[in-house]
Amino acid sequence: MVSIIEKFATLATDNAPGQEVRQSAGNIRDLMRGDEIRGRLVDFSHGDVDAFTPTPGSFERFSEAVEAGGRQAYTEYRGAADIRSELAQRLEAFTGASVSADEGIILTPGTQGALFLAVAATVSDGDKVAIVQPDYFANRKLVQFFGGQVIPVGMNYLNATAEAGLDLSQLRAAFEAGAKTFLFSNPNNPTGAVYSQTEIDQIVFLAREFGITVIADQLYSRLRYGGEHYTHIRARGLPTEQVLTIMGPSKTESLSGYRLGAAFGSPTIISRMEKLQAIVSLRAAGYNQAVFRTWFNEPKGWMDERIRLHQAIRDELLEVFRSGSLEARTPQAGSYLFPTLPPLSVSLQDFVRLLRHQASVIVTPGTEFGPHANSVRLNFSQDHAAAVEACRRIVEMAHRYRR
Amino acid sequence: MVSIIEKFATLATDNAPGQEVRQSAGNIRDLMRGDEIRGRLVDFSHGDVDAFTPTPGSFERFSEAVEAGGRQAYTEYRGAADIRSELAQRLEAFTGASVSADEGIILTPGTQGALFLAVAATVSDGDKVAIVQPDYFANRKLVQFFGGQVIPVGMNYLNATAEAGLDLSQLRAAFEAGAKTFLFSNPNNPTGAVYSQTEIDQIVFLAREFGITVIADQLYSRLRYGGEHYTHIRARGLPTEQVLTIMGPSKTESLSGYRLGAAFGSPTIISRMEKLQAIVSLRAAGYNQAVFRTWFNEPKGWMDERIRLHQAIRDELLEVFRSGSLEARTPQAGSYLFPTLPPLSVSLQDFVRLLRHQASVIVTPGTEFGPHANSVRLNFSQDHAAAVEACRRIVEMAHRYRR
Repeated sequence: MVSIIEKFATLATDNAPGQEVRQSAGNIRDLMRGDEIRGRLVDFSHGDVDAFTPTPGSFERFSEAVEAGGRQAYTEYRGAADIRSELAQRLEAFTGASVSADEGIILTPGTQGALFLAVAATVSDGDKVAIVQPDYFANRKLVQFFGGQVIPVGMNYLNATAEAGLDLSQLRAAFEAGAKTFLFSNPNNPTGAVYSQTEIDQIVFLAREFGITVIADQLYSRLRYGGEHYTHIRARGLPTEQVLTIMGPSKTESLSGYRLGAAFGSPTIISRMEKLQAIVSLRAAGYNQAVFRTWFNEPKGWMDERIRLHQAIRDELLEVFRSGSLEARTPQAGSYLFPTLPPLSVSLQDFVRLLRHQASVIVTPGTEFGPHANSVRLNFSQDHAAAVEACRRIVEMAHRYRR
Repeated sequence: MVSIIEKFATLATDNAPGQEVRQSAGNIRDLMRGDEIRGRLVDFSHGDVDAFTPTPGSFERFSEAVEAGGRQAYTEYRGAADIRSELAQRLEAFTGASVSADEGIILTPGTQGALFLAVAATVSDGDKVAIVQPDYFANRKLVQFFGGQVIPVGMNYLNATAEAGLDLSQLRAAFEAGAKTFLFSNPNNPTGAVYSQTEIDQIVFLAREFGITVIADQLYSRLRYGGEHYTHIRARGLPTEQVLTIMGPSKTESLSGYRLGAAFGSPTIISRMEKLQAIVSLRAAGYNQAVFRTWFNEPKGWMDERIRLHQAIRDELLEVFRSGSLEARTPQAGSYLFPTLPPLSVSLQDFVRLLRHQASVIVTPGTEFGPHANSVRLNFSQDHAAAVEACRRIVEMAHRYRR
């Protein structure tokens, strides 16, 4: 039995995005080589909602909800019926497979809330779960928190281009070893890799063969570059009960301050998620739910422009890293970039602290996403010019601390 | 080992407040005696925020936060430092014991969020937890969800008046049996009983003797009637690490639509709660956190007036129930009333469904709070006249279905 102290030891958040403010500078000055590299602080641990502002109309929808009063303050735990109904139609159109407004969708406090409830609803003591390396750091922590066992599945993201690079033989081996759940992000967080249709169909094939429950975190699936093709796993022939899709407007739409997410698909999992939500936080904040009315309902051209601006940042940052000899996969979607660092004379944790204190750049260490001690993750949804300057500082720092 | 199906079976929400909309009417017409009793629908399962509106300035503080942008959207997981600092001072003044802004307070999505994190941070597989009967329904469910074992402690709320009526010998027996945590609401939900200073001091005495962690849910501790004396357990000599207090502005202040709660006290528990919040929902919605600025900071006289209006409703409802021979304890604080029904010829579940379909009254069955099959809970924070009429209908229904 895992003691409560061990249980919480695996939940360390010291290096989690946004928690940097709780770190002490410690002995960092002793490690510094050379002077400070000055520049405007860029916090790549999350997107900058001042650079890319929330969806037009979001605040207005919120205000109307406050005006509406009690009806909007107290919704069903799974969210207001009329809003679920609107979203079900739009998510059906987006993903190409039906969504039941009554039984097949739940609104949650952020996609993090949806992930937590989904893992709680599928993973119990001793259950094995296949998790991609690298993938979103909370996936691993969630499985461990509920007493499950992570079976890692590699992804060769640097060398694959036409596909994400998932190691399908490792995935099969994980299922053969008894994994009953496969939890993955698509586009992949932190690399921005998008799974090809062939890869998705092979996942579906294995999931059918082994009776696997698939949880697909598609948080960034709207922000796709250069007409990139995207395959929604829920539309590729898995039984409805076997797949749950998670999305939300926190990232591309810059609505993180409202904490909104949605999970849709399997009615059995969603019913459990609602029961649990009743004791976790009751519901996504009632007034906030109304902001969902803007989702998949943005002004014409708004999303295209947002994609265009992010693509321009992506291209210039890749150019900065590559001309500085730092390798990185070209993100096909989303706003994460996961460059590889040269061998360093300091630990990755120290390098990340040095970046913050010496170069005014905040990044998330690759070790949060798996055994990736030679990478850092950047969310490049930032002011374009400031992001470029900050990446130049990262390159200079990488050379300064090269082993 | 508890299977995931059993685990979720204990989380049934069918009779939970606010979920009535998901119940089917079933065969309810077959059970009906006599005609419908018409009247304006009153939903006593929660307070009516249209009758008692949110704190003045709450929406304005929210708007300023949206205007502030990223700084307010992405806070530390435990909440924005400046807001924690404001609240720490006010909660210190309210409770009479110090609160550390840095280590001793966490902001959560509602008090439900705080309760969930607090129980997760203290209760693990096989741990015994002392729980009062009756008490808030989620307490029991939370303990069970985390694999803990509930040890019930009786409360003789109907016959006690100078105190809540806690059975202290049962509390001692629970600690002797190995309970390491005591979780209770004060004022008690559903009865409105307030623990006397003597009772609190006896709880403290036992908690010291047995090294118990005390989690005190003080959600309703501001809404006190007729100058009722109130004792904050955190100010009665327990070591800081042994007590966590939970409060929030969802009820008395009608801010439930924003989902805001706070837990303060033990730094160890709060540190664990923050680690868990990182994977549960990241943080209380960033913009919403700013609404806390209105808390304990209401316009002069606003709270007194709110108390006066609730006391007037309370007194008239008690009069309606008592003149109809339904016994009820006089709530000393909060807006819950827990009348005892006469012996009925239908089950409590059916009576509650009949109340809804035949008499347009929604109440929560007493069985949600423990083995109280002869009671219903009402949240009387409602339109005064409509609440009185609805309680007259409850009395008539109780007589109509009397065994």
